[in-house]
Amino acid sequence: MESFETALASAASATEEALDSLIPSGDGPEAQVLEAMRYSALAGGKRLRPFLVMTSADLFGVARSSSLRVAAAVEMVHTYSLIHDDLPSMDNDDLRRGKPTCHIVYDEATAILAGDGLLTLAFEVLAEVDTHSLGEIRAELVLELSAAIGAQGMVGGQMLDLLAADHKLDMPEITRLQRMKTGALISYACQAGAILGKASETQRHMLTAYSHDLGLAFQIIDDLLDVEGNAAEMGKRAGKDQDAGKATFVSLLGPERAREQAEILVAQAIKHLEVFAGKGDLLRNLAKYVLTRRK
Amino acid sequence: MESFETALASAASATEEALDSLIPSGDGPEAQVLEAMRYSALAGGKRLRPFLVMTSADLFGVARSSSLRVAAAVEMVHTYSLIHDDLPSMDNDDLRRGKPTCHIVYDEATAILAGDGLLTLAFEVLAEVDTHSLGEIRAELVLELSAAIGAQGMVGGQMLDLLAADHKLDMPEITRLQRMKTGALISYACQAGAILGKASETQRHMLTAYSHDLGLAFQIIDDLLDVEGNAAEMGKRAGKDQDAGKATFVSLLGPERAREQAEILVAQAIKHLEVFAGKGDLLRNLAKYVLTRRK
Repeated sequence: MESFETALASAASATEEALDSLIPSGDGPEAQVLEAMRYSALAGGKRLRPFLVMTSADLFGVARSSSLRVAAAVEMVHTYSLIHDDLPSMDNDDLRRGKPTCHIVYDEATAILAGDGLLTLAFEVLAEVDTHSLGEIRAELVLELSAAIGAQGMVGGQMLDLLAADHKLDMPEITRLQRMKTGALISYACQAGAILGKASETQRHMLTAYSHDLGLAFQIIDDLLDVEGNAAEMGKRAGKDQDAGKATFVSLLGPERAREQAEILVAQAIKHLEVFAGKGDLLRNLAKYVLTRRK
Repeated sequence: MESFETALASAASATEEALDSLIPSGDGPEAQVLEAMRYSALAGGKRLRPFLVMTSADLFGVARSSSLRVAAAVEMVHTYSLIHDDLPSMDNDDLRRGKPTCHIVYDEATAILAGDGLLTLAFEVLAEVDTHSLGEIRAELVLELSAAIGAQGMVGGQMLDLLAADHKLDMPEITRLQRMKTGALISYACQAGAILGKASETQRHMLTAYSHDLGLAFQIIDDLLDVEGNAAEMGKRAGKDQDAGKATFVSLLGPERAREQAEILVAQAIKHLEVFAGKGDLLRNLAKYVLTRRK
């Protein structure tokens, strides 16, 4: 796994650099919103989604200069979703990635605008000619992203999550919620690599299947860490789902069966990669890493 | 002007229909966010920005099926900006277009998500092949929109506006704020027509110049109506800028000179349309209408 850890760290630092260069500093008083965008986007993190974009794109020999821009756009979207989800009227979180959340450092209005700005900038980055020479590809990247993160994807998932505080979800409901709230962007990360690489139907289908299983496994482990972890290790408040009385995979299945379920999903995810033979090793190792991560 | 009023009303009702068909209703509990999106987007309004998109596109003989989709996308963006600007942590408005604002009817979290959903859907609509057969055009529509409404455009303008409560702006500062906050999207509306119609450099330049003057004139009249108007006529709280002690064109110039300034801008705007000869009549009449509108 050593080469995997190296690849993950190297993708994270490339993403950090790309975000740093793509989010301008600006001058004038309105630069406060850019500063808030930079604060949240450059706060570190595992950068799993950018890693997925770049690693999927590598399967098809896509130039890193293309895939890194898409990776940064995906991370901007992820960051926007965290900023808005952390707001007082949503999940009301004051700690994220080990640092005070955007609305704590600035204020609510600035945090809302910083999220809006990051979402908008993500689309700008995708549509720029530097991302791909073909307009068809750029438009497809935009189309699939917007479908994944809109009211019938990520935004709808957050709506579901907020409403779920009022009643206990069952397994199919939680699975659907997580597919929308976290799974859709994870799937897009893999799909974006396939779009850039003009993958065949089969290849694309297999990557999508991989990303569905990976996304659910990732969420189950997240729920386990939420129960077992502590804030210092996780960089965010632990036990918050439990405190909120929310149903999670762990509250429904218990920790042991939840972990088993995650293992089954990871095995399935890896199986979908057969079509890529040896080229799929980094994605295989990522799936295994999801099971062992500590934060 | 009769044919102008008819054209404006007909564009507004076409926009309403397009929004109705482009924003799904959805089922499942997450449909609450779609319902909130529909509530705010289908609340009526003059639909000036969609009119600008369609009328600019008509200069170049663009199919209405294309320009109407872009018009609807622009109105989604406008609606998203109103929903977020009206939030308690921003301008804290409870009345908009004569109806309770989104966060009053639903709640803050739903309103934030409804704005996010509309912004995302706007990009989805632009990127879909139904908007234009060429990917290059779709990507350019996305690129120019994101540049207009991001942290260095509309979102930055709202940041400036919030910070301006703390100190009085002078004329160049107010002009810059309005160019960003309201002017950028109005300019995009005209530019989008030019992009769809593959306008020449000169034509595009003239439309942009027209939209800059029109946008400022529109804002000055808005400020005048804010001072003179009443809530019943305007469908939103009147006098709120005055109450907030905000500098506006009217507070700096006085109502008479402000109106003169708007008239000069409208005359300039109309002058930029010479290159379009008779085809520019609807845009000319729109500029004149801006001076006479009562709400």
